[in-house]
Amino acid sequence: MRTSFASDNFSGVHPTVMAAIERANQGHAMAYGEDEYTASVLEHFRRHFGEDTRAYPVFSGTGANVLSIQAATRPFNAVVCADTAHIHVHETGAPEKHAGVKLIALPTPAGKLTPDDVTPTLDVFGFEHAAQPKVVSISQATELGTVYTPEEVRALADFAHGNGLLLHMDGARLSNAAASLGTSLREITRDAGVDVLSFGATKNGTLCAEAVVFFDPALAEGFDYVRMQGTQLASKMRFLSAQFEALLEDDLWREMAAHANAMARRLEAGLRDAGVEIVFPVESNAVFPRLPKERIEPLRQAFYFYTWDEDEGIVRLMASFDTTEADVDAFVSLVAEG
Amino acid sequence: MRTSFASDNFSGVHPTVMAAIERANQGHAMAYGEDEYTASVLEHFRRHFGEDTRAYPVFSGTGANVLSIQAATRPFNAVVCADTAHIHVHETGAPEKHAGVKLIALPTPAGKLTPDDVTPTLDVFGFEHAAQPKVVSISQATELGTVYTPEEVRALADFAHGNGLLLHMDGARLSNAAASLGTSLREITRDAGVDVLSFGATKNGTLCAEAVVFFDPALAEGFDYVRMQGTQLASKMRFLSAQFEALLEDDLWREMAAHANAMARRLEAGLRDAGVEIVFPVESNAVFPRLPKERIEPLRQAFYFYTWDEDEGIVRLMASFDTTEADVDAFVSLVAEG
Amino acid sequence: MRTSFASDNFSGVHPTVMAAIERANQGHAMAYGEDEYTASVLEHFRRHFGEDTRAYPVFSGTGANVLSIQAATRPFNAVVCADTAHIHVHETGAPEKHAGVKLIALPTPAGKLTPDDVTPTLDVFGFEHAAQPKVVSISQATELGTVYTPEEVRALADFAHGNGLLLHMDGARLSNAAASLGTSLREITRDAGVDVLSFGATKNGTLCAEAVVFFDPALAEGFDYVRMQGTQLASKMRFLSAQFEALLEDDLWREMAAHANAMARRLEAGLRDAGVEIVFPVESNAVFPRLPKERIEPLRQAFYFYTWDEDEGIVRLMASFDTTEADVDAFVSLVAEG
Amino acid sequence: MRTSFASDNFSGVHPTVMAAIERANQGHAMAYGEDEYTASVLEHFRRHFGEDTRAYPVFSGTGANVLSIQAATRPFNAVVCADTAHIHVHETGAPEKHAGVKLIALPTPAGKLTPDDVTPTLDVFGFEHAAQPKVVSISQATELGTVYTPEEVRALADFAHGNGLLLHMDGARLSNAAASLGTSLREITRDAGVDVLSFGATKNGTLCAEAVVFFDPALAEGFDYVRMQGTQLASKMRFLSAQFEALLEDDLWREMAAHANAMARRLEAGLRDAGVEIVFPVESNAVFPRLPKERIEPLRQAFYFYTWDEDEGIVRLMASFDTTEADVDAFVSLVAEG
Repeated sequence: MRTSFASDNFSGVHPTVMAAIERANQGHAMAYGEDEYTASVLEHFRRHFGEDTRAYPVFSGTGANVLSIQAATRPFNAVVCADTAHIHVHETGAPEKHAGVKLIALPTPAGKLTPDDVTPTLDVFGFEHAAQPKVVSISQATELGTVYTPEEVRALADFAHGNGLLLHMDGARLSNAAASLGTSLREITRDAGVDVLSFGATKNGTLCAEAVVFFDPALAEGFDYVRMQGTQLASKMRFLSAQFEALLEDDLWREMAAHANAMARRLEAGLRDAGVEIVFPVESNAVFPRLPKERIEPLRQAFYFYTWDEDEGIVRLMASFDTTEADVDAFVSLVAEG
Repeated sequence: MRTSFASDNFSGVHPTVMAAIERANQGHAMAYGEDEYTASVLEHFRRHFGEDTRAYPVFSGTGANVLSIQAATRPFNAVVCADTAHIHVHETGAPEKHAGVKLIALPTPAGKLTPDDVTPTLDVFGFEHAAQPKVVSISQATELGTVYTPEEVRALADFAHGNGLLLHMDGARLSNAAASLGTSLREITRDAGVDVLSFGATKNGTLCAEAVVFFDPALAEGFDYVRMQGTQLASKMRFLSAQFEALLEDDLWREMAAHANAMARRLEAGLRDAGVEIVFPVESNAVFPRLPKERIEPLRQAFYFYTWDEDEGIVRLMASFDTTEADVDAFVSLVAEG
Repeated sequence: MRTSFASDNFSGVHPTVMAAIERANQGHAMAYGEDEYTASVLEHFRRHFGEDTRAYPVFSGTGANVLSIQAATRPFNAVVCADTAHIHVHETGAPEKHAGVKLIALPTPAGKLTPDDVTPTLDVFGFEHAAQPKVVSISQATELGTVYTPEEVRALADFAHGNGLLLHMDGARLSNAAASLGTSLREITRDAGVDVLSFGATKNGTLCAEAVVFFDPALAEGFDYVRMQGTQLASKMRFLSAQFEALLEDDLWREMAAHANAMARRLEAGLRDAGVEIVFPVESNAVFPRLPKERIEPLRQAFYFYTWDEDEGIVRLMASFDTTEADVDAFVSLVAEG
Repeated sequence: MRTSFASDNFSGVHPTVMAAIERANQGHAMAYGEDEYTASVLEHFRRHFGEDTRAYPVFSGTGANVLSIQAATRPFNAVVCADTAHIHVHETGAPEKHAGVKLIALPTPAGKLTPDDVTPTLDVFGFEHAAQPKVVSISQATELGTVYTPEEVRALADFAHGNGLLLHMDGARLSNAAASLGTSLREITRDAGVDVLSFGATKNGTLCAEAVVFFDPALAEGFDYVRMQGTQLASKMRFLSAQFEALLEDDLWREMAAHANAMARRLEAGLRDAGVEIVFPVESNAVFPRLPKERIEPLRQAFYFYTWDEDEGIVRLMASFDTTEADVDAFVSLVAEG
């Protein structure tokens, strides 16, 4: 199909990633991650995120989130998140089923939680009849395209730790956040106090590659078994690892994410010039314009995208590593034509 | 690493499959299986398995097994299987955790269940205090390399259906079984009475591609949600589908499986000639020789493989689509040298 | 302790119920509900709720709710309830853990849902990434002491059924609701369209007796196993059944509930006379007055009760079958004294 | 019904226990175990089992077992037990569903495990694809009426602890075992190395009273929430506690159990005198005679009991606190008459 703005998982695989997959296709390799490709990629994770980092490649973002939460909780716990969080609205109740936990979903102005938001949920501490908050889960970048600064993450981490909670980050678009902030991956995760990270790569130019990353080895205890029982252990792991290798070896992750972010900003600028309201700050690769409702369907015919809020006429436009300036300009022109 | 006999998932990706993956990497595609590649592959499944077949690509064999079982049971049910079954001994208790069920694992001479084996497990029917058998699960080919004939599958299916049970087939190596028997995929599954199939491709020359296949549409009801909640829905599904396309379009599945089977038979013949006992019938791509214990480690240094029964000196040799006659002959020579 | 207004489960066992327990303590009886007491009590359930009623005594209200929900859902489903619902705020996430479902909790003015409240939650129908609503769960009487009229229940039932959902009623205080409305138990449950009921007796003068009641036998299929696996099957069932016998044989249930309701109304009247605001309609055995915050602790010393909203100074007063006019008048006097 | 030998849960409630329940029925009491009766009974538990004992009353034996196992495991763990264990054959798969674990059930000569039995199950330690043994669970007395000596329990405990496992005891008939051995409750549990105990009282003359008892406070961490989420927290807890009070205050537990044991030995002696084979050692309150098959039904008409092994003609006779010498003698006479 024609380039779309539907989702960064409508895009394909970056040529460098595909080449890495092919390179990994040499002869036999140990299965289930005992291979040399995986050994190498775990080194890259440690280089990016620090010694003692424990990284576990998995198949899917939902898999990464669910297993992260399972590792950090017991079934009587609650996980506090924004009410726009992927774990809450787009995972068909997977965290509840797999970890047994309750999700406490809070409204936010633009997808970002603050310690003040979380505070009231702790009122139930010690109350036997209520699920006990144990994890604050944030998305970086958020589902609304906004980005937590390192200071904002740190504030949440300090708050969480000060109250006996852990901080989980759903980093399906972590690369976009880091590229946007101009930080390393580490500065907005481990260094900002994150305990466990779902590190996403699929939305950033790979075929199928996500990882659960622990910054505290104690949290990772037994996680080999959790991943296997959780149906997220790849037999031919080398091909997942090859994808991470391509991303992490030479900062291809940043190059692709930065490009997607730039395309989102170009979209934003063009649309604003055309008089279109953009309803959330454009801080990563998502743009949420409010469009005249009768314009939405014709535009979608040209460039596929999803409606975010039908009543309000708000749509979601996602840029990808392969979005071109020509795509953006063509879309903006269409909008501008009215 | 050098060609091994450790597992068919030590082998890589067949060039035709890799080419299909690359071909699917064109522009954007709808995510989560709404793409044209997936539409096409579902046609292939129907062509191979019959109209009304419902096929759902997933990431992993354990994922396929667990979700098959969840679809066919309620948590108070039991699943009857051989005590060598992958679901029982190699999935870290995943069926129990995900579906809530109990596994009833029965000893068998060579990995194959019969109706007579299952009969006694039905004594608890209607007894409130016992998990109620609902599924008979068989592996085709079995974990011991043996193969059920269509008649044997049919006998189990008739027995299961006659007692209100369903028949699940763990077809991680279904292709090897069909190639061995000279049947179509359908003849030993749907036509033999199987209700739900875990169709494996990863062990047969793909990168990462399994599928849950229902032959009764009623069993598939709600399975879209089961798969998503079960963390087994691929966002960039086209790349899973491309692998199945390569396998199913021109019977590459059979070509690869037949080759692996042939290499296993060559191994068997060579080893028997060298005076080695083969402990299970060689009916697919696995060979289980009994070796002098002191020979095992030196041989493993040359060609990696796994020990099956340490006390008995029985090892498992798996052939793959890429095993060569030279590999086999070299291994046999080493053994023969003593 | 002195008579309290803390909860109807602070009260003890009505003498008639205790006498029934003692009467059941004669010789041996079949275990697990095969006894004559249970046979008789199931007759009472059918007499009260209609033929084809399937009633299953269990130990606890949370047990009844969780197993009701499990029987009515699959793990990918969602249960829609008021955000004051016991299943949401007072069961430590038990529905999520046991049934795997997600709870969708909606704000209400006084604990009562309407079809209009539920409508927006159905937007996700058919959307693979969202838990699929399958049950509307309402509390009768509600946790705020309000009561659904038969027409209000019917409206919800029609709405639910019209959309493929089921209606569950948490009837921990069903007797209070029926006594308040002057209806039979059946008129506000089965006749109003309820599909599955948690029928509570513990809060109404028994020792430990709740029941899951199905009005559609198909929903009850396999529930014997669900209850046993769910750890809610009593071995010496006759003693649970004896309690229901005492309640249901001669409408002791109504006598006790009506008394508790009358005491609540007396509390309401007395407090209003003393100038106290009552924040929710008093329609069963709960009264929610707003008290001067500095008065709360001294009053609690005299008559134990729970604070509902600390910031607002709202407390919850529950009347029981054994609350006396003297208790009420003494409490009101204390409040009136200032 | 006439006194039976079917099960110790066919018997009723000892008058002393019933009197205690009635005594607890005075005025109001804090709910959910905050009452004085429960405070007192926890003292009794500490007196019997030692300081730091954490006891949690629950409703049912299956509830106690399931929550004990949940507290001691993670879902990827396995629990090793005898293949006659109640958790394996009579709980409808509850441990699997609630704790996610796999049960590894081993054959034994008479229901009793030894370290040597367990040793081979540890071969999978560290193998990612296998559920990891974490708990050895034994029944005391066993389902076959045999009893572990303190030394035998200690040997299993030392073995378990030496391998990083915990020892769980299903003490549904712990009192019978202690009475049989002439030990305190503590000598065959805590002092013998048991980590967590399901302490049963229902089968020993109470109405409904079981408890989860931890000897290591660390294991009990969070168990308040586990019990509540597990639907096993009684609202009117005082009535459960009263039952334990009656049992534990003056060693009524031993008096009743010793009587039941004596009746079992009388049965054994009488049957042996009548030439009947007794197939398991009679060490508690169960007797397993082999009877001529055609005699079983007529005898069952007179005194209800269950068949254990239909093919072998083995039946199970259970004595209770209320079994009389006359009952026993009448049954023996019937058998002797042929």
